Amino acid sequence: MATQRILDFLATRRPSGPCLVVDLDVVADNFRAFEKALPESKIYYAVKANPAPEILRLLASMGSSFDTASVAEVEMAMDAGAPADRISFGNTIKKERDIARAYELGIRLFAVDCVEEVEKIARVAPEARVFCRVLTDGEGAEWPLSRKFGCVPAMAVDVLRHAKSLGLDAYGVSFHVGSQQTNLDAWDKALGDAKRVFSTLAEEGIALKMVNMGGGFPTRYLKDVPTAQAYGQSIFEALSKHFGNQIPETIIEPGRGMVGNAGVIKSEVVLISRKSANDNVRWVYLDIGKFGGLAETMDEAIRYPISTAHDGTETAPCVLAGPTCDSADVMYEKTPYPMPLSLTIGDEVLIEGTGAYTTTYSAVAFNGFEPLRAYVI
Amino acid sequence: MATQRILDFLATRRPSGPCLVVDLDVVADNFRAFEKALPESKIYYAVKANPAPEILRLLASMGSSFDTASVAEVEMAMDAGAPADRISFGNTIKKERDIARAYELGIRLFAVDCVEEVEKIARVAPEARVFCRVLTDGEGAEWPLSRKFGCVPAMAVDVLRHAKSLGLDAYGVSFHVGSQQTNLDAWDKALGDAKRVFSTLAEEGIALKMVNMGGGFPTRYLKDVPTAQAYGQSIFEALSKHFGNQIPETIIEPGRGMVGNAGVIKSEVVLISRKSANDNVRWVYLDIGKFGGLAETMDEAIRYPISTAHDGTETAPCVLAGPTCDSADVMYEKTPYPMPLSLTIGDEVLIEGTGAYTTTYSAVAFNGFEPLRAYVI
Repeated sequence: MATQRILDFLATRRPSGPCLVVDLDVVADNFRAFEKALPESKIYYAVKANPAPEILRLLASMGSSFDTASVAEVEMAMDAGAPADRISFGNTIKKERDIARAYELGIRLFAVDCVEEVEKIARVAPEARVFCRVLTDGEGAEWPLSRKFGCVPAMAVDVLRHAKSLGLDAYGVSFHVGSQQTNLDAWDKALGDAKRVFSTLAEEGIALKMVNMGGGFPTRYLKDVPTAQAYGQSIFEALSKHFGNQIPETIIEPGRGMVGNAGVIKSEVVLISRKSANDNVRWVYLDIGKFGGLAETMDEAIRYPISTAHDGTETAPCVLAGPTCDSADVMYEKTPYPMPLSLTIGDEVLIEGTGAYTTTYSAVAFNGFEPLRAYVI
Repeated sequence: MATQRILDFLATRRPSGPCLVVDLDVVADNFRAFEKALPESKIYYAVKANPAPEILRLLASMGSSFDTASVAEVEMAMDAGAPADRISFGNTIKKERDIARAYELGIRLFAVDCVEEVEKIARVAPEARVFCRVLTDGEGAEWPLSRKFGCVPAMAVDVLRHAKSLGLDAYGVSFHVGSQQTNLDAWDKALGDAKRVFSTLAEEGIALKMVNMGGGFPTRYLKDVPTAQAYGQSIFEALSKHFGNQIPETIIEPGRGMVGNAGVIKSEVVLISRKSANDNVRWVYLDIGKFGGLAETMDEAIRYPISTAHDGTETAPCVLAGPTCDSADVMYEKTPYPMPLSLTIGDEVLIEGTGAYTTTYSAVAFNGFEPLRAYVI
């Protein structure tokens, strides 16, 4: 997955210390693949996945819209050239003063999942569009979502009715099938739930217009994942099945699926050792770990492909850990990671598929280590 | 645990957004309590727990030494006024160029746990003192350490012998009983292991001089913990039991125990909601979460005391979550946290005992949220 442009950059620039290199050509390809797979859907890039200004500018210029999690992300998207009407404030948890600030900036589309949030929006963002997030079970996702966001569909009806009664535009329903979702049927059940909310409110004269189908589109790590085209096909079929010939506006919010495979982290082997003379598992310590950008290895959830100059030679299982004095800073231990026997201290390794959820997750200065640097080329 | 000075600061300064406030008087009290409890031990403050310059300057002026995890932490300690001979490079995972840089800065005390690390040190830090970390099982600790650091005692003998053969000063043994260790007997077993390493090497004519007893000293969260005095007593008894009248130099490395109870995080309730009409657990969302400084709530390991203006009134169990769009950003869900029924959106809460492992753990910009600000008063 390390493109030739990334390999050339690393070979010529030789950056010292761990760093992420992102290839914008891959991001552009991903954007076009989503456009082609779901031609009727608007693409709202999930800024939180990687807010590098170069990525935001590229996507803004290609016509992307943006899903944002905070006022800072709204401002980043606008700085990159996105007009306010192409930005959604997609976090269901917002301070009232942040809603007011976003409204001042021109934002008119907000996520909610309870009447309490609707009331904040009604107070400081009159007539704004709101969509209500419904809970899904996230089955089949490698990074399943908890119940943190969304409410049951029956409550979504109450929430949207309340929005309407307060003068807001009860605009639609959203869901998220779980990050790194590889089960193509996941969207079917959620779209069925969404349709029921549409139908119930239609009976009361409230005509919803939009379904926000969230993210969940995967990056290829160690296993193959379905293509964007396959996702598009499944989603289109589910939309037709549930909405017939009255398919609403739809939004998708790819984050990982847009940038995950565009980035590679270059890291260095700091130490290889054993814990006792007869230990059959080596410990390999890198100069990046869970607190330096690889937070998604939490519970060994995401298993990144790692390449070395020794690939193709004999391997043996290793525990892979980060460089900090924190014992939780271990990436893969329950399921050791096979690494070449000839790997040595000082070797460079490439951690692939790391374009999403790495730089901004990284700790500000834990153990004195600086946050992950990024080069967007 | 919020001292009057902290409460006064918050009342008069009214900082906006989440922030940590650290009371230096408490840090000074803690330092004196450790001095009194273990008068024969040198105190090496674990800089990683909280590297705020004000804390480092205070401790340097009180005569503390410093345990550092990186060259950046070495430099911070020196900037705070600590001479090089009061600084230990305590991370067992170091790049050779970082060892060289620390040596240039005057550092002569290094941690190791394998022959590979010894060889790096021998190459770039001739004649330096090294101590070898041995594995302990961390039983009784609330944040148990994995096998990431240390080797079995039999291997420590080989490591220190190798150090000696390469011209280094085979100086001693270290261990860490696990963070937030409340079992006073934990030090006894580890000191027994240390003594065996001393004895074995003494037979070969290698006289170790020091035992680094690490950290593990707890902060009081929701449950009472033994006093520094009680730890001192137990440790002194274990030292006497194993080393008789030949007690070596000893070092302790308190981090959490030095600053944990000196800090309070001020946070705001962003949202309180339910997921369905008949949900009996409320979700309380704060403006700080796992990625904003409360990383130690991982697996609900550390349970911080939280106070509100409604304390003393009726409570009910809540799921407590952070403000980001990340479903993993939930602090307490498996064991819900009792919060006052009268708590409302916009209320301030104080998260106590948060002086350690919060600011530097915080993500650099996750979801666009800025890292945790800190005021040291």
